[in-house]
This record gives sequence, structure tokens and C-alpha cells, in this order.
Amino acid sequence: MSEQNNTHGNLILLRHGQSEWNASNQFTGWVDVRLTDKGREEAVRGGEMIKEAGLEPTILYTSLLRRAITTANIALDAADRHWIPVVRDWRLNERHYGALQGLNKAETKDKYGEEQFMAWRRSYDTPPPAIDADNEYAQTNDPRYADLPEIPATECLLDVVKRFIPYYEEEIEPRVKNGETVLVAAHGNSLRALVKHLDKISDEDIAGLNIPTGIPLVYNIDADGKVLNPGGDYLDPEAAAAGAAAVAAQGQAK
Amino acid sequence: MSEQNNTHGNLILLRHGQSEWNASNQFTGWVDVRLTDKGREEAVRGGEMIKEAGLEPTILYTSLLRRAITTANIALDAADRHWIPVVRDWRLNERHYGALQGLNKAETKDKYGEEQFMAWRRSYDTPPPAIDADNEYAQTNDPRYADLPEIPATECLLDVVKRFIPYYEEEIEPRVKNGETVLVAAHGNSLRALVKHLDKISDEDIAGLNIPTGIPLVYNIDADGKVLNPGGDYLDPEAAAAGAAAVAAQGQAK
Repeated sequence: MSEQNNTHGNLILLRHGQSEWNASNQFTGWVDVRLTDKGREEAVRGGEMIKEAGLEPTILYTSLLRRAITTANIALDAADRHWIPVVRDWRLNERHYGALQGLNKAETKDKYGEEQFMAWRRSYDTPPPAIDADNEYAQTNDPRYADLPEIPATECLLDVVKRFIPYYEEEIEPRVKNGETVLVAAHGNSLRALVKHLDKISDEDIAGLNIPTGIPLVYNIDADGKVLNPGGDYLDPEAAAAGAAAVAAQGQAK
Repeated sequence: MSEQNNTHGNLILLRHGQSEWNASNQFTGWVDVRLTDKGREEAVRGGEMIKEAGLEPTILYTSLLRRAITTANIALDAADRHWIPVVRDWRLNERHYGALQGLNKAETKDKYGEEQFMAWRRSYDTPPPAIDADNEYAQTNDPRYADLPEIPATECLLDVVKRFIPYYEEEIEPRVKNGETVLVAAHGNSLRALVKHLDKISDEDIAGLNIPTGIPLVYNIDADGKVLNPGGDYLDPEAAAAGAAAVAAQGQAK
């Protein structure tokens, strides 16, 4: 399945471990929150799983957000691959959650109702309301985005697909097709965008896909770019199923 | 002195915090030991100093060794610059300590005498005995060095100068001359090689120069490559003086 050999490359997707705002059930998006201690432990375990599976990443791609960067740093250290090259790019960032950034998910659901709440979370092409430039959770004047022509004020999943998949095809996929093992440490929605692309999931069906935190998901991809194991293989399938269910239930807790 | 402005770039040198083998007083070289908790705290403080000084690194260079990589990860996180680009290169590695790697420094001094001990530590052009390829502390078959034509079996400081300074001049100096603020997270002897070059220190005098752990040393360099503050400025000069004295005394403790 996911062992290294000469007939295919490996794409390892790793969603960051629990963040402070995962723990407090707030919409995060581009707000640069830290991992919790639990999140750091998840990252260690993720790295150990990569090592135990015999996978040896040759390059790391992360977003510009601390929770993915820290997860990758910790996981690579645990996998004894801390020394590989690193590329960071904003196109791997989480979906920008617009004016929802900073709001509690359960309170938002109570206030706007289940239907609107789920539309904001899972609609493919309808973004939440835009965040004001002077909102404390907007990225106005954040130096890491100084080179962007325009900093997003909100995004739907389609927007993430549009920014991330061309980057994937240009920068990451050629390495995997060439037989490399690439680690992508990113976010719930940027990884959903990529999985949608890899598994050719429809705009409707992607709403039902949840990616758990901290459990590496491995795709074997051949020299033609064909996915040899559709759906990928989680390195801990049982924990992945439980984790995905927990993500799906995020509207519940306060 | 070290504030950012438009008339010069900044080169920030950061020696990794205390490692497990700094603590146990063993020659380390290319052996990939971890930071101690104290070393991690030093890294946090180093990053805070960078932030408090108003310095904003635009790119990070590290060696391929865990203690420098971890120091940089922690320091950049503390400085809120965790998202900048990263380049890792073996030419920033610590000096390879040959057959001394793994030996206790005080025991080595007792066994071989003060003169031989200091010659191995501080001779500019005489390396220690070579390490055997099958020594547990050799880097034989270490995948991170697979692309090197030959993995060193020992190095003197001159060898470090020969591998690191051309890399510095080609990859790092142009950025600083261009006004960037570059963070170099590396090791006692690779940083001594660089300081020797920057301050034009003689082959003899470099023996007396010790660089403390965890305290950023900032050089202001103009567009012509001229160092505007010879000797550089430590961001905590008092702690730096105490730290350098501690490095000089490393033969004492067991």
C-alpha cells in the first residue's frame, strides 16, 4: 500500500494537530493560532507513524500558518527527517473564513441556524460574509502576505481549489510523479481541496468529507500522476475514522 | 547599531542553545544530538531578543543538524517570523570532530594533556584524528549526506572556512548586501569561521574567540559588503560575555 518502492511516489497529507481554537471551537481560517499541548502530541505521533511506516519524506510543504508549521517541525523531528528541505506557501493556507473568523462555532450555529451554519462550513461555492479590513482577525498589514496582490476577505472551498490545485500541479505533483515522498502539512479545508482533486470527488460529495487532525493520509501516485490507492491510506485507520467523526460534530460543543 | 533601516542589511548569527552533549561535555561535531530543556529556553529567549530589537528576518539558513534546526524553529516562532523561507545546507554544519566525536572533553584532556587537547579544539589547520567509517558516531550512510562526494572523517577550522565561506559569499551575503535581514542558525565553529571572515581575524587570533549559545550576534552590512559595526553587536552583551567565558572553560567540567 504505502511502502516506498521504485514504481510510485508518495504524497503524505498531514492536517495540523489540535489548535487553541480547535479546542475552544472557534472558526480560525487565517488567524495564526498556536497548537495546544494535545496538538503537539498529535504531531509527534504523526511523525512516529511516518517513520514506523518506513516513509522517508524528501521535502516538506507547509502553509504560512503557525499551526501547520509547528506540526510539521514536530512531526519531521519525530520521523528523523528534520533536515529535509522546506517550502512554505500561502496557497496551502486554511480557507479564509471571512467574518466568521474568531466566532464560536456552536454560538454561530445557535444564532444563524443549522442550515446557514452548515452552508458556511460546507458549501462549495458560497463564501461566508467578508471580514472588514479593520477587524482584529483580518490579515490587513500582515507582513507574510505583503507580496499578494490582494489578501482574501473570505473564501469558499472553490476559492481554495482555485489557488491550491494549480500550485499543487506545478510544484508538488511533479516531485511525486518523479518518485519522491512529499509531506504536505496543511489544514482541514486546503487538504479537502486536494483530496477532492486526487479522488475526483464531486462538488456535492466533498461536503461530506472530513479529515482528522494529526493522522498521515498517504496517496501512492505513479509516474503518470495516477492515484494507485484511491481514497488514500490513513496510517492509523481506526483513529482516522474516530477523528473524522469528531470533526463532523464540531457544531455541537461550546 | 542593529536597528533595521534602508542603508544596510543585517546578518543575525545564532549559535544553537545547550545540547545534550554540551550538557554532558562531549565532543559533538556532526553527531545529531538534541537540545536540552535549557537549550530550548535559550532558543525562546534568542527569538524574543530578535523581536524586541525590532529585527525582522526575511530568510533563515540552518545546518542539517537537529540542534540548530530546533533552535531556529523555536526562535523564529518566538519572534513571530516562523513563516519565513528556510534553507538548510550541510556547509553550515559544526566542524566534524573526527575520532573525538562522542568523547568526554575533560577525560580527553586528562588522557592526552592540555596541549594536545587545546590543539585539537583550537588549532586552525590541524584536524583531530579521522573517525573510522564504522564508528557509531561516524555519518556513514546518513541519508542527509547522500549527495556529498565525500563525507568528512574529520575537520579543522580551516576546512570549515573552505566549505562555508564560499557558500556564504554566494548564497547569503548577496541578500544582506541587498538590505535583507538574514538569520543564520548554526554552531560554535561554523560561526567562528564566519566571524573570522567578517572581522578579518588572523589564523592565530581566532583561537581566542568563543561564541556563546543562544544570544543573537548582529552584523550591519552595507551594499558593498562592508561591516559597519566590526565585531558585531550581541543583543544581550552581558550574557554574551558570560557565555563566551563558559565556552572557553569547557575542558574543566566532567
